[in-house]
Amino acid sequence: MKTPSSLEELIEALRCQPGIGPKSAQRIAYHLLQRDQPGAARLAAALTRALKNIHRCEKCNAFAEDVICTLCSSPRRDAHTLCVVETFADMLMMEQTQCYRGLYFVLMGRLSPLDGIGPKEIHLDRLLERVADAEIREVIVATNFTTEGEATAHYIAELLLARGLKVSRIARGLPAGGELEYVDSGTLAQAVIERRAVEPS
Amino acid sequence: MKTPSSLEELIEALRCQPGIGPKSAQRIAYHLLQRDQPGAARLAAALTRALKNIHRCEKCNAFAEDVICTLCSSPRRDAHTLCVVETFADMLMMEQTQCYRGLYFVLMGRLSPLDGIGPKEIHLDRLLERVADAEIREVIVATNFTTEGEATAHYIAELLLARGLKVSRIARGLPAGGELEYVDSGTLAQAVIERRAVEPS
Repeated sequence: MKTPSSLEELIEALRCQPGIGPKSAQRIAYHLLQRDQPGAARLAAALTRALKNIHRCEKCNAFAEDVICTLCSSPRRDAHTLCVVETFADMLMMEQTQCYRGLYFVLMGRLSPLDGIGPKEIHLDRLLERVADAEIREVIVATNFTTEGEATAHYIAELLLARGLKVSRIARGLPAGGELEYVDSGTLAQAVIERRAVEPS
Repeated sequence: MKTPSSLEELIEALRCQPGIGPKSAQRIAYHLLQRDQPGAARLAAALTRALKNIHRCEKCNAFAEDVICTLCSSPRRDAHTLCVVETFADMLMMEQTQCYRGLYFVLMGRLSPLDGIGPKEIHLDRLLERVADAEIREVIVATNFTTEGEATAHYIAELLLARGLKVSRIARGLPAGGELEYVDSGTLAQAVIERRAVEPS
């Protein structure tokens, strides 16, 4: 028996999502069609609505329903600090720490020349426009410590330093609760190189 | 049948070692007695020899056969920097990174008042004697980032700062290759708080 082509298309559309393999895609498709047709309609409507309503915040480039997102327009955030992150998920992680009260710029990617992702694709032109705002006193580059994240951080830092901005990078070192015996030597080496002076209190 | 008491004592002596449970202790004891009596004799002799020959290096407090260990007496090490670690294993980890060329002081423990481990038990009197050496310009405190390791670091830093020494602490932050999405928020918060200024190159 041949799978009906509209079912095949649904499975294929599900299978392309992160964390969903061929088996899961089938299971979800059968579940939606067989047991939860209202759920399927809800999912379709939610997708259509999200596609229509979610845009990029003009200031921080994050997903937003308004032209300027609620975080960027909040008067309770520190407008002097801008944190540059790779993805929307990274921005949410930073918010979870509850230790950062400034604003953000979301690159929605990282430099990756082999995949054709250059400065234009990660919206560096918009970042430069954003930091032209005289209120911003420090840019914290919080891209990942992967090869691509580090290259992106370096590129951004050079751009911003050339414009006379104060730039900083989140710290590398031992994780919270970390023990020397159980970390890799790359991390320990960085922790020694980037050691901090202890000041008399 | 009752296990002969000398066998029981052997199993008990093995069982007390880190990473050896009751089953492993039995298995090792039976193996040594049944299949590898020369190995048992070698182990006994090695233990006796180690107990007799291994002392603490007078300078760094690490295990050593001589009065001063080979690392402390090496002319190729930077005598201006002293790194304080909790254990001999931590010292070996630091050596593995190949990024540190200074000398060490091994506490052989950490402050833990509830277990009766105070400044005397981690040889802080000897550390103070050691840093009286005018050659030492910086002490890097590399205890773990656990509660006890942090308390120990704080205590040592206060002692040394009061003597006018330059003290630093290994860095906390994201591990090498770390991605924001996958680290705990405590670590990310520290990485933001301890961010480093990026200087124009």
